[in-house]
Amino acid sequence: MVQNVEQHAINTVRVLAADVVRGANSGHPGAPMGCAPMAHVLFGKEMTFNPKNPKFINRDRFVLSNGHGCALHYIYLHLLGYDVSMEDLKQFRQVGSKTPGHPEAHDTPGIEVTTGPLGQGISNAVGLAAAEAQLAATYNRPGFELFNNYTYTILGDGCLQEGVSAEAASLAGHWKLGKLIALYDDNEITIDGSTEVSFTEDVLKRFESYGWHTLSVADGDNDVEGIAAAVAAAKAVTDKPTIIKVKTTIGYGSLLQGEEKCHGAPLTVDDIKQVKEKFGFNPEESYAVPKEVYEFYGARAAAGAAAEVEWNALLEKYVQQFPTEGAELKRRLAGQLPEGWEAALPRFTPADKAVATRKLSEGVLTALADKVPELLGGSADLTGSNLTRWKQAVDFQHPSTGLGEYSGRYFRYGVREHAMFAIMNGLAAYGVNIVPYAGTFLNFLTYGWGATRLSALTHLRVIYVMTHDSIGLGEDGPTHQPIEVLALTRATPNILTFRPADGNETSGTYLVALSDASRPSVVALSRQNLPQLEGSSVEAVAKGAYVLQDAADAKVAFIATGSEVSLAVDAAKLLAEQGVPARVVSMPCSELFDEQSVEYRKSVLPAGLPVVSVEALGTFGWEKYSHAQVGMTSFGASGPAGQLYKKFGITAEAAAAKAQAVIAHYAKAGYVPELGVEF
Amino acid sequence: MVQNVEQHAINTVRVLAADVVRGANSGHPGAPMGCAPMAHVLFGKEMTFNPKNPKFINRDRFVLSNGHGCALHYIYLHLLGYDVSMEDLKQFRQVGSKTPGHPEAHDTPGIEVTTGPLGQGISNAVGLAAAEAQLAATYNRPGFELFNNYTYTILGDGCLQEGVSAEAASLAGHWKLGKLIALYDDNEITIDGSTEVSFTEDVLKRFESYGWHTLSVADGDNDVEGIAAAVAAAKAVTDKPTIIKVKTTIGYGSLLQGEEKCHGAPLTVDDIKQVKEKFGFNPEESYAVPKEVYEFYGARAAAGAAAEVEWNALLEKYVQQFPTEGAELKRRLAGQLPEGWEAALPRFTPADKAVATRKLSEGVLTALADKVPELLGGSADLTGSNLTRWKQAVDFQHPSTGLGEYSGRYFRYGVREHAMFAIMNGLAAYGVNIVPYAGTFLNFLTYGWGATRLSALTHLRVIYVMTHDSIGLGEDGPTHQPIEVLALTRATPNILTFRPADGNETSGTYLVALSDASRPSVVALSRQNLPQLEGSSVEAVAKGAYVLQDAADAKVAFIATGSEVSLAVDAAKLLAEQGVPARVVSMPCSELFDEQSVEYRKSVLPAGLPVVSVEALGTFGWEKYSHAQVGMTSFGASGPAGQLYKKFGITAEAAAAKAQAVIAHYAKAGYVPELGVEF
Repeated sequence: MVQNVEQHAINTVRVLAADVVRGANSGHPGAPMGCAPMAHVLFGKEMTFNPKNPKFINRDRFVLSNGHGCALHYIYLHLLGYDVSMEDLKQFRQVGSKTPGHPEAHDTPGIEVTTGPLGQGISNAVGLAAAEAQLAATYNRPGFELFNNYTYTILGDGCLQEGVSAEAASLAGHWKLGKLIALYDDNEITIDGSTEVSFTEDVLKRFESYGWHTLSVADGDNDVEGIAAAVAAAKAVTDKPTIIKVKTTIGYGSLLQGEEKCHGAPLTVDDIKQVKEKFGFNPEESYAVPKEVYEFYGARAAAGAAAEVEWNALLEKYVQQFPTEGAELKRRLAGQLPEGWEAALPRFTPADKAVATRKLSEGVLTALADKVPELLGGSADLTGSNLTRWKQAVDFQHPSTGLGEYSGRYFRYGVREHAMFAIMNGLAAYGVNIVPYAGTFLNFLTYGWGATRLSALTHLRVIYVMTHDSIGLGEDGPTHQPIEVLALTRATPNILTFRPADGNETSGTYLVALSDASRPSVVALSRQNLPQLEGSSVEAVAKGAYVLQDAADAKVAFIATGSEVSLAVDAAKLLAEQGVPARVVSMPCSELFDEQSVEYRKSVLPAGLPVVSVEALGTFGWEKYSHAQVGMTSFGASGPAGQLYKKFGITAEAAAAKAQAVIAHYAKAGYVPELGVEF
Repeated sequence: MVQNVEQHAINTVRVLAADVVRGANSGHPGAPMGCAPMAHVLFGKEMTFNPKNPKFINRDRFVLSNGHGCALHYIYLHLLGYDVSMEDLKQFRQVGSKTPGHPEAHDTPGIEVTTGPLGQGISNAVGLAAAEAQLAATYNRPGFELFNNYTYTILGDGCLQEGVSAEAASLAGHWKLGKLIALYDDNEITIDGSTEVSFTEDVLKRFESYGWHTLSVADGDNDVEGIAAAVAAAKAVTDKPTIIKVKTTIGYGSLLQGEEKCHGAPLTVDDIKQVKEKFGFNPEESYAVPKEVYEFYGARAAAGAAAEVEWNALLEKYVQQFPTEGAELKRRLAGQLPEGWEAALPRFTPADKAVATRKLSEGVLTALADKVPELLGGSADLTGSNLTRWKQAVDFQHPSTGLGEYSGRYFRYGVREHAMFAIMNGLAAYGVNIVPYAGTFLNFLTYGWGATRLSALTHLRVIYVMTHDSIGLGEDGPTHQPIEVLALTRATPNILTFRPADGNETSGTYLVALSDASRPSVVALSRQNLPQLEGSSVEAVAKGAYVLQDAADAKVAFIATGSEVSLAVDAAKLLAEQGVPARVVSMPCSELFDEQSVEYRKSVLPAGLPVVSVEALGTFGWEKYSHAQVGMTSFGASGPAGQLYKKFGITAEAAAAKAQAVIAHYAKAGYVPELGVEF
């Protein structure tokens, strides 16, 4: 039998969840009340963590994939002694609180990853578990189990319906991530009512098909021992991830229990009173936590703190015994890239041959592979097209496959863009300075935008290597040619959009992307060869835009990105022949340009100078930096790249003609609109 | 044994595929050569279709979900007598051809849906099969099986790895779509090599878990009778979709057969010669089709034409016997909406109460439900939040569930946004004037953008009912608050982005969205209540933007959308108090505004008038229509909506102050930059 204090602790959580959601007059009481027993098993019995140092590196990870139930997690953070006070709980869903409507990793101590958008959490958990496996295989030595944490996740029907979780679960099975344990809150309720209306598949059978170990607990409302036994059984199977189907009652204790009505709205005051009475609490008291409950969970915290002390001692011994690995690990734990890594970045002169930026990216990654062991690469089954793999790379694979090792650093994600991005978020969130990068075609960035958006919101250094970045990809046609994708990335806060023009800018792109540990980067790369440009610079990329080539008394400027910078150079030459001096500005990253001083920005795009932008994607948004635009206003087409540029009027001739028109127009108007005025 | 002509026909297709890809010097020979036998069974034996009328409404549908193998489909279209000539095959992947690099439904007769982005085709096929089920249940009568076609799809490993296909397959199983038959080209090869590197799940077991009927064919390279028998067995099971795993050899016949090298690049000239010799063709001849092969497939075409004649006669009898249904069906087949449907659209005056546009949308849908039977609604498990269901709606469900009927018009998609969008594409592509619409939160549009993009590219009338369209959703926080999403939709060709401000504009939005049969619409709707505005108009929505409220001698204009239009009205009042007359422009759809005459656009935003935009999403892109912007420049936050508007400076006061600053700045500058100059 469950000890009384444990049952009381679980009921405390249920009652407190009802209070917290009621206090906000907004939120989701149902999942916390239903999931309290399984959360108790994890936080109160199984997991190791240190509330006083939420970043203790070998802690067990916990992800609440059904993030809308976050009152549950916040309550546990509070009870366990994390820096989440009762006052914080009372500020649930209020502006500026540590307890927002969905868990945000950047803002709340103890939250590993940002969840809420369904399916992301379980997919992040796959990444967290893969990170543990990779680090354990890389750094553990006999007697030195530095990395051996478990990754737990609670997820609901919603997460299981999302495609991203299906992709990630298939990979987790393939990778045999035995330390990943998922608890499926099977309450048979979604917002539209019974799962019978839309979700009647056999979930455990599906997970078996992925190669998971599957278990069930029939009474998740009460059978704490059964849940604990299932978790123990999960741990005993070391070469398969485990999913435990835990049958629960949503809103357990409420008059509405088992109904969708208690999913996403506070319980009534009267209902909360009867819940309290039912569970032996004073119905007139709110936000009450019995002393023995604090004490019970407090003991868990103390055990966790001790575990960290022990781990730190082990690390010191490790550093002595394995000085090379130890030093590397300590560096990584400090969040530092290796000293002098930048020196490995290739540099080019205009005499060097024309190369596609995807190929130049391969050169950078190859140059960095040995120097920066925290780089973990991959591709969504386009390795040979994205050129994301360095020659000596070892694949991340379970050793039994004979196809790689867990210490491998190249991930074969399969055709699963959304999971790839979400798994990269998990890899980055693990810590130890992991820098995940992976490739697909730029157009398929939007297959996984749900995860990319969370890279940005959560400040994760994830590098999206997105090749085939325009109509320049040619024959694959409009289904593969991005038009709108860079507008999307540029319109999104806290993410950098790079479109390097040549070798130096490609190196500069990686220089910034790796150095900036607080945001993700999207790197758009060409399929086609591009010349090495006169005036291009590795260092200037950090400024976002710079004068690549200038002309005395310039009458117009071209501002271009990536594959169209050389086209702009050609257009300037045409104009020069026509007696019109023109400046060429390369803009590898508009967001970084926006962050420069007014003086710098004005030095690049001075008042009075007409500007024409050139980019072989949609023109949307370019009005900010230019008076006229050369670009796409329709979807692309299937055909050889050169012919497509002509068909869509993206040529040096068209750009020069547009520049002449702009000059003439504003000469007549008597003014040139100043760009970048700030109000 | 297979008759000789059939084997010869299959080999003809293989050889021709090698020639076609070689001719383009680009493309994918492997899948066509491997899939030729199964395609032969479908096109040469099983399917009914009329090449002379590719739109014959009761034709069997075929979707090549692994769209990169489209040479296969184009070759069959040619052999069967569709308007795809040998010359068209020679123009494979060339600009302006009927044979682009991936199948485009809008451009090639006989292509049902646009595929290539993996996972879309199978998901469209679920929509096509659902459409058949819905129409059959709605219109068929004893003796009048007007709708009874099958939907076939060929798909590969890539499609099966994508989450969208997992979502769609789960729904197909739930819906028991017995007339959906998928042939899985199990060639064990993806671009990265063997499927062993990333795709080791048990696919058939997974589909069993979804409730599918599963079958296998061991030798898909040669066992045509086995494939045919499997298809017959699939047809015999009427309450489950079927997946047939067909083991094939990629590039069958090539020296590279079974290797990834023949996946995505032409075979060498020498290899093609040996393929031809192996299959008994003249190695020196290219693009050769034996007469008996043309004759064999020609007979199929003749049978299909006869089937259409028979069907047309049946329809005429039906019209006589069931005049009401018959007239409705004929109207729908003609692509006409019901006469006078627009009269049902609600209209409002400023005296009417404040209502959220999501609620106003519910009012429109409720008003139209009876009038427009081709409206097929749904939601991704947010029915009560999106307000997408009219009260008397019947759910689309298999009758055995007791939860609805196949004639039901409301789809419970579950938490599966991507599949929902792809299934809507399939519903719309079926024809019979089906207008699918469905809801989720605006922020989760990007979970399914891979499908939405194809709505636009393929000119499908699909209506995206996207509620909770800004920080105005409040407490759910930044994980749910869209910032970048409308920049994405506006940057995309051939899709309309609506953000109505009140009741009249919501009605006007649906007026345009339903009337425009050649493109999709994204309708962004508020969670919060909005006042009915003085000056708002149902009809003006078609112009994209219009002067909602004017002031004599206006010194500035506000341009706003949706929930911020009333805020702009308030800002104009503040300015009036400060002695500054201001115009208020409502812009429910910027894309429609761009399509108006210069005169009209200048009448709304005249030269010389400073403009301030107000929209509670990211400001990216608004430079096109305004000199200064009020909006979001970061992610949102969790808290009550009113507090968030203040926190992020989106208030009437802030808008008025910005207007004053803009007026002052340009007074000093001596000019006001003209907006919308075209070069």
